[in-house]
Amino acid sequence: MGAFSYIPSETPSGLKKLRESELQTLQGDGAGQRKTSNRIYDYDTYNDLGDPDHDDELARPVLGGKDHPYPRSCRTGRPRSEKDPLSEQRSSSDYAPRKQRISSVYVPRDEAFSEVKHLTFFTKTLNSVLRTLIPSLEAAGILDPEPEFTDFTAIDSLFNEGVTLEDFPDNLQRASQDYPIASRGYYRQTLAGLNPCSIEIVTEWQLNSKLDPEIYGSPESLITTEVVEKAIKDGTLRPIAIELTRPPVADKPQWKQVFTPTWDATGHWLWILAKVHVLAHDSANHQLVVHWLRTHCSTEPYIIAANRQLRAMHPIYRLLHPHFRYTMAINALARESLINADGIIESNFSLGKYCTEFSSVAYDQLCRFDMEALPEDLIRRGMAVKDPTSEHGLKLIIEDYPFANDGLILWDAIKEWVSAYVNHYYPDPNLIESDTELQGWWTDVRTKGHADKKDEPWWPVLKTTESLIHALTTIIWVTAGHHSAVNFGQYTFAGYFPNHPTIARTNMPTEDPSDEFFQNFMKKPEMALLMCFPSQIQATTVMAVIDVLSNHSPDEEYIGDSLEPAWAENPVIKAAYERFSGNLKRLEGIIDERNTNMKLKNRVGAGVVPYELLKPFSTSGVTGMGVPNSISI
Amino acid sequence: MGAFSYIPSETPSGLKKLRESELQTLQGDGAGQRKTSNRIYDYDTYNDLGDPDHDDELARPVLGGKDHPYPRSCRTGRPRSEKDPLSEQRSSSDYAPRKQRISSVYVPRDEAFSEVKHLTFFTKTLNSVLRTLIPSLEAAGILDPEPEFTDFTAIDSLFNEGVTLEDFPDNLQRASQDYPIASRGYYRQTLAGLNPCSIEIVTEWQLNSKLDPEIYGSPESLITTEVVEKAIKDGTLRPIAIELTRPPVADKPQWKQVFTPTWDATGHWLWILAKVHVLAHDSANHQLVVHWLRTHCSTEPYIIAANRQLRAMHPIYRLLHPHFRYTMAINALARESLINADGIIESNFSLGKYCTEFSSVAYDQLCRFDMEALPEDLIRRGMAVKDPTSEHGLKLIIEDYPFANDGLILWDAIKEWVSAYVNHYYPDPNLIESDTELQGWWTDVRTKGHADKKDEPWWPVLKTTESLIHALTTIIWVTAGHHSAVNFGQYTFAGYFPNHPTIARTNMPTEDPSDEFFQNFMKKPEMALLMCFPSQIQATTVMAVIDVLSNHSPDEEYIGDSLEPAWAENPVIKAAYERFSGNLKRLEGIIDERNTNMKLKNRVGAGVVPYELLKPFSTSGVTGMGVPNSISI
Repeated sequence: MGAFSYIPSETPSGLKKLRESELQTLQGDGAGQRKTSNRIYDYDTYNDLGDPDHDDELARPVLGGKDHPYPRSCRTGRPRSEKDPLSEQRSSSDYAPRKQRISSVYVPRDEAFSEVKHLTFFTKTLNSVLRTLIPSLEAAGILDPEPEFTDFTAIDSLFNEGVTLEDFPDNLQRASQDYPIASRGYYRQTLAGLNPCSIEIVTEWQLNSKLDPEIYGSPESLITTEVVEKAIKDGTLRPIAIELTRPPVADKPQWKQVFTPTWDATGHWLWILAKVHVLAHDSANHQLVVHWLRTHCSTEPYIIAANRQLRAMHPIYRLLHPHFRYTMAINALARESLINADGIIESNFSLGKYCTEFSSVAYDQLCRFDMEALPEDLIRRGMAVKDPTSEHGLKLIIEDYPFANDGLILWDAIKEWVSAYVNHYYPDPNLIESDTELQGWWTDVRTKGHADKKDEPWWPVLKTTESLIHALTTIIWVTAGHHSAVNFGQYTFAGYFPNHPTIARTNMPTEDPSDEFFQNFMKKPEMALLMCFPSQIQATTVMAVIDVLSNHSPDEEYIGDSLEPAWAENPVIKAAYERFSGNLKRLEGIIDERNTNMKLKNRVGAGVVPYELLKPFSTSGVTGMGVPNSISI
Repeated sequence: MGAFSYIPSETPSGLKKLRESELQTLQGDGAGQRKTSNRIYDYDTYNDLGDPDHDDELARPVLGGKDHPYPRSCRTGRPRSEKDPLSEQRSSSDYAPRKQRISSVYVPRDEAFSEVKHLTFFTKTLNSVLRTLIPSLEAAGILDPEPEFTDFTAIDSLFNEGVTLEDFPDNLQRASQDYPIASRGYYRQTLAGLNPCSIEIVTEWQLNSKLDPEIYGSPESLITTEVVEKAIKDGTLRPIAIELTRPPVADKPQWKQVFTPTWDATGHWLWILAKVHVLAHDSANHQLVVHWLRTHCSTEPYIIAANRQLRAMHPIYRLLHPHFRYTMAINALARESLINADGIIESNFSLGKYCTEFSSVAYDQLCRFDMEALPEDLIRRGMAVKDPTSEHGLKLIIEDYPFANDGLILWDAIKEWVSAYVNHYYPDPNLIESDTELQGWWTDVRTKGHADKKDEPWWPVLKTTESLIHALTTIIWVTAGHHSAVNFGQYTFAGYFPNHPTIARTNMPTEDPSDEFFQNFMKKPEMALLMCFPSQIQATTVMAVIDVLSNHSPDEEYIGDSLEPAWAENPVIKAAYERFSGNLKRLEGIIDERNTNMKLKNRVGAGVVPYELLKPFSTSGVTGMGVPNSISI
């Protein structure tokens, strides 16, 4: 195949025929069940999350389509479910003891994990957690599904001593244990933590819910300007108020209540419990939307389309290829064990069986390709405004926003590299419009992979150099920068689960203040907190899973690190890549320097974990840094 | 001796001679070494705290006299120290292995612990802590003197699991573990905790230190009205600022810094550390002044004087006798093992070898008999103002001040009882002035027991019924109410030591911000906190000791509980005592009711320990309630 890249119009004629048959093989015919030896890339809905044939309780809607818009996934062609003809059957091996299960979700041969990854990483970590640790805990009866922790010592011991089972990695002790529980650190972490992508500026009062008042009751927030003005004192980020609400149900009217930090004991404990509720919702939003949906799930269509429409020698295929590594394989694993009905996510997050449906609603209402570019994401959330006189053309509203500050340098570096690359292969913008493979790829992305959004006006049209550069920069930013920022800090910031619990198992004690529950809360509020927190098995499972997710494989490929052979042979590309690589090394130095600047209170302070998630390079393991090219975990 | 009480002028002539010789025996001749069989009550200074003969480091000044004013203690007449002729030798058994030690401090025979107290209480608890637990820990090398706790889990485990040694009581698990550490609860506890007697109202700005500026540097506080106004928002008691200062030493100028609650990580940890410093100082003030000095130490002279000057059949002797039970014995034990050089207090409190000297300074500057009455104590601290229209004639500045609210009812009950008693035996005020024994007692108290204060103008003169009633009510309040309020809550509120550490072992990291210590603080602030906290052996020792101090003996005698035989035979006194007893039962009900009133946020709230310290009755053990007649622990 050689290492040279050619756009279609410049492809040597000898290669043209090869190209035709290759693409036909890759696209398949949309029929039949896929085998592990296949190389076929085809689309399908998320039709294998539920398992109604096994248990009615496990029925889940198909995601993808009018009712539940969603990106498409790779078609596997398994037999249809008997109870829900829209769904595929899950592998029968799901109900073998977990230890014997094999991965049942088809992945094209070229997307499978490498030997190294498989042996060292996959076997020892995610595999061992899913197939060894959790079943062992269950089997040993160590952790019944229900019980809460008996006291805080037990929580600290879990964190400090980890779980000691033979097959289990011994790296559960590395994260920084923030102290005290659900501490003030969390507010800073909305700018420099595991999810720096949800904080938004409030731009208008009165705050109103957008939910249907008919169903959810009055949409007016009780958090008024008065509540806020009382609390704002200086420029530090601090919590002012939390409003929790329950829609009217049965004979009960809508309930809502504002909680604020107070100095009396009852108010203080209510505030802690309200924080647990907020953090549990934030965990679901982080895991299902900011992490899974916006990176893993949205990227799979780009990969399928690229393999269906671009030849391997196409320069854009070559540009993107490193950024697509292992993503389909990890996504297949997620469909099998993480986001499936009764899987890890549903069992451990507040939304339960509605977890994936929730991410479908988010896809419908929030996701748009043009907003995935970092600058646009910041502007949309009100965290930045356009300002040609500022660095990166943006003025940040909170100047010390570590994710944004580091991310914009990374964004610019990617953009500079992509610009050089695109300008080299498309010296004339007309070449872009006339590149049938490129346009085919983009059409596939829009109309097939993201079919439920195909008519949206915001899709870029690839006619100009700028539009192509912007689209490609966005894709690379998502697979590298955005994914790293929201994935590799998970163990650091949430490994000690009280800092970021995934579930709030009880209602607020004030929701029905007359009952026994409230009395028990008044008597033993710490017990109420332990009952609200994840159960023992939930906490242990999540801790083990996010430890794995935060882990770099020994064969990890970091952005700007090694030169692809195809680029080495082209002096222009090689030079551009070296510049790119140098920029990333510079970024590493800039981040290190920022992390010693005492003025940057959101990244430097007593016991503050330095914000290193966007430092490009890392060793293997859980390091809290390193930006791999692709979404591979 | 019969059960009738007689003032001297009314004593039947047959008893007069008996009386003369009895008093001579009791007063002794001021010479010779006392033996355990003696019944002699004589005064001496605190001249046995140090032990220079054993080690120069253990030299301590004699307390009592011009240089170090102090109440007097019971004379023991042991041989003089070789190195310090002003001091007595300590018993050589001090340096036998602690387990074999016997109590070496003389106590008049009638003041010794009863068999029951000795067997069940003394042997099993304080004795076992001082003589068994601590030496065992040392011997077993479990606890080296230095090491801090390695992590917070170790602290919680100590608290939850206690110390498991054979001889040790298993009651180390009962206190309420406030959460999180050094929590907001503390502020409330200045009104309803183990030391509700130190909070004062600020009445003027600028705040100024009263220390000599020549030595201690600028006296002006950096806590200005501006700092305070920024923080005051509503009526809740909350911390606004902590100022810490170090006088100029050697080449370093005075250091002072104000810490406030903040939301950035560094400021937050500094605030926690500043709180540890405040709490450590508060612990010393509580233990050495509010508890030891104002109750145990100040009361001993009343007891010695009563035994020297009043016959056992004197009505005032009979009135006070239940309130003096075991006090000299427990004080002897304190001199032997708690407040002695290198004893429990010096080893575990911030002031170290200056602990007792500090309480001497406090005696000199602060202690006055007329301010020990609860109403006057409240007025002096600005917590109440006189108001004839209010209940108890006082208007509280903080209305929900549980110690004051419950205490004033107890004060009034005592006063009503004492009034009936005094009015019965002294129907004519002239009888008071002419009662030579009574006047002799009071003269002894003023001029011998409190010799260093003998010229103070504030001593009441016992000429009127009112002055006698007020003085006696004050004494009974101190031995019963005040002592209970500041003693029996110790384990409840400080048993989990992070809530009220007794020592801050390190300086603030900002005191010398250039050095390594500050860098370590920034890196691992939780480690800085653990190093500042008491060491393992300090924490364990204090926890064990305050557990014992918070304990009621099975033979405890509670105020208003059982009628003295002498009172039963007099129908007027019997009726008055029954009224007294009924008032205390009523107080019990009032306190229970208050502890369910949700409006009283300083005593009711989620996880708040109800304020029960002034509930008169209790079962034995650590109960957090019960007002014994006397200071017996």
